[in-house]
Amino acid sequence: MQHICLALLCLHLLLLCKAEEGLEFPNFDGNDRVLDINERNYKKALKRFDLLCLFYHEPIPANKGLQKRFQMTELVLELTAQVLENKDIGFGMVDSLKDAKVAKKLGLEEVGSLYVFKDNRVIEFDGEFSSDTLVEFLLDVLEDPVEMINNAMELRAFERMEEDIRLIGYFKGEDSHFRAFQKASELFQPYIKFFATFDKSMAKHLSLKMNEVNFYEPFMEEPAILPGRPLSEMEIVEFVKQHRRATLRKLRAENMFETWEDDLDGIHIVAFAEEEDPDGYEFLEILKDVARDNTNNPELSIVWIDPDDFPLLTTYWEKTFKLDLFKPQIGVVNVTDADSVWLDMSNDEDLPTAEELEDWIEDVLSGRVNTEDDDEATNDQEDADITENSSENEELDEEYDSDD
Amino acid sequence: MQHICLALLCLHLLLLCKAEEGLEFPNFDGNDRVLDINERNYKKALKRFDLLCLFYHEPIPANKGLQKRFQMTELVLELTAQVLENKDIGFGMVDSLKDAKVAKKLGLEEVGSLYVFKDNRVIEFDGEFSSDTLVEFLLDVLEDPVEMINNAMELRAFERMEEDIRLIGYFKGEDSHFRAFQKASELFQPYIKFFATFDKSMAKHLSLKMNEVNFYEPFMEEPAILPGRPLSEMEIVEFVKQHRRATLRKLRAENMFETWEDDLDGIHIVAFAEEEDPDGYEFLEILKDVARDNTNNPELSIVWIDPDDFPLLTTYWEKTFKLDLFKPQIGVVNVTDADSVWLDMSNDEDLPTAEELEDWIEDVLSGRVNTEDDDEATNDQEDADITENSSENEELDEEYDSDD
Repeated sequence: MQHICLALLCLHLLLLCKAEEGLEFPNFDGNDRVLDINERNYKKALKRFDLLCLFYHEPIPANKGLQKRFQMTELVLELTAQVLENKDIGFGMVDSLKDAKVAKKLGLEEVGSLYVFKDNRVIEFDGEFSSDTLVEFLLDVLEDPVEMINNAMELRAFERMEEDIRLIGYFKGEDSHFRAFQKASELFQPYIKFFATFDKSMAKHLSLKMNEVNFYEPFMEEPAILPGRPLSEMEIVEFVKQHRRATLRKLRAENMFETWEDDLDGIHIVAFAEEEDPDGYEFLEILKDVARDNTNNPELSIVWIDPDDFPLLTTYWEKTFKLDLFKPQIGVVNVTDADSVWLDMSNDEDLPTAEELEDWIEDVLSGRVNTEDDDEATNDQEDADITENSSENEELDEEYDSDD
Repeated sequence: MQHICLALLCLHLLLLCKAEEGLEFPNFDGNDRVLDINERNYKKALKRFDLLCLFYHEPIPANKGLQKRFQMTELVLELTAQVLENKDIGFGMVDSLKDAKVAKKLGLEEVGSLYVFKDNRVIEFDGEFSSDTLVEFLLDVLEDPVEMINNAMELRAFERMEEDIRLIGYFKGEDSHFRAFQKASELFQPYIKFFATFDKSMAKHLSLKMNEVNFYEPFMEEPAILPGRPLSEMEIVEFVKQHRRATLRKLRAENMFETWEDDLDGIHIVAFAEEEDPDGYEFLEILKDVARDNTNNPELSIVWIDPDDFPLLTTYWEKTFKLDLFKPQIGVVNVTDADSVWLDMSNDEDLPTAEELEDWIEDVLSGRVNTEDDDEATNDQEDADITENSSENEELDEEYDSDD
């Protein structure tokens, strides 16, 4: 995150009925909990807390407006620190100029990022910078990186987590093979979930042999088996690194910017579908079919966005992409200019079939459908099924961004 | 909401990588969109917008601190208005003193509440007062109150919505019976979901006869059939009113305060369970069994809270109730003082069975387990299985609330 701007000041405010107790949202109490990290105190801070969260920032700007934004960042951290006060988590700010030496020693690289230190590991947070998301993220980081599956009910919970990348291993107990698995899990916490079982009947249900590890790609029915057993930490890590970009991946607040930055040749295939809406659900099921059919295509990764998860972005997307997000949509987005092309589903009573979607995706991957064709203002558009929204959007974008 | 205090100023702030486009959170642009409603303009405002959102507030306080809180409320509305700018939703403030006449004409009653006017109806919002929640709520209100189920995939989506109160009716088409159903749906939008089908095979799958309406209580496997058919609007409304307090109900940001205020004799049975966590999932399944066994007991309504939905409240609950919310918990909470008693599950490897839970719930309903017994500092506690947290909590609470 090199060119950072603070794009939103979203104020949450809670009205509370004092007559009833039990739902009191915390009010920032004004106590300063976020440390100013420097050469003298960083080692102590690392030692003192189970987790240490450091925000690596540019020098405090002279400009008043930017100063205000900086204070807002601090306030998000302060409220997070207050809420998590009894959890043994430290918070600090590291100035990229004043504290350059400390930053180097700690390995902080991207200005504007938040780094979480746990034991001897560093976890970078690249999600929505809000107290809600941060609190949830940090509580996840506090938990054990490997979760045990001991009974049939827990197994069912595991099987229901189809949106997550999950690994599960069967081990005899807390032996060296399990510890290798555990070590590997630490590198991916909390983004990739690791599970283990020591129970023979659980393993049987999962068709897991002793010391075997399975990798579940999101939305796939069958797991991949990691080659070889027992596996070393390195072997597990390498496998996960190679397979972590899923054919269908859900955009999540906790790592949304990381996901968005991981584009394929500057574009994303983006699908909007509200899971709670019957149409959205139907479309998502079709998407899953397409993803399952194409899981071995490394060129294909569809970003699924559930508008319900991002209420503040919904109308921005509608404006930028000129879409109606009450209905499911799929399109190609150029991430450098947000130029986009969307599959026209407006004339049909029914959603496209999996086959129709696959044809369209093939056209995208082959370049027949792309965001650039109409930029040259030609009329020889090959595919009449495409709506192009970029030209109108540029004006809208400008209007929209003018107050940044 | 008579005694209102603004309990949280939660600042959201977005860091954004400018190199990549497509995820830009809105920044409040400083334009004033929230109207000052008065006798001269309220009729025009009602006419002009599809939806009109009015915040009914106490006179602007003289106290500077309270003024700031008031400005924060305004800011939440302003950001919401900005985000929804192209949706034809109006926003306004009504002063309970200055605009008393208007308030009376509009039927505004509870100071501190937000009222949404749609056609000739008024919908009261009693949830988390944040832009996220408000935007989502208003987008839901904009949609048609009856959603059509046309095919098997949509039916599957309908069947998956086990957390919601849902009604579904089978009609010939848009006839008077369907319209009665539609009229009834408007009174409960968006809190209670109404579906309809005109398709014979869908109706057959749902065992619905022509003009019949089924009521699905959350987490129940079988629906209740509304007596009589065809049904009048009134008959549907009355049935929903009588059955809307479910045996197991999930706390949601959009109406959390309403749910909390709907206690049974001043107490709530509260269950904390993280659905995404294997233990939490297991506990929730047990709870559902208990709810299904006791669905006809009007005395029983368990409030299920998924801590994942309320990251900012999690540690507050841990402090107030002295709990570890990494694990599932169930207890009784007195809503007037947040005094509480929790079922001790710490010694067991396994979670309680449905039978054990039912025994405990019976003890709660009969008063054998209650939040008051230990307040008299007696040692003759009947049930050793109970942890009482109230006395220690009072101090903690005071400490916690001291900055309010």
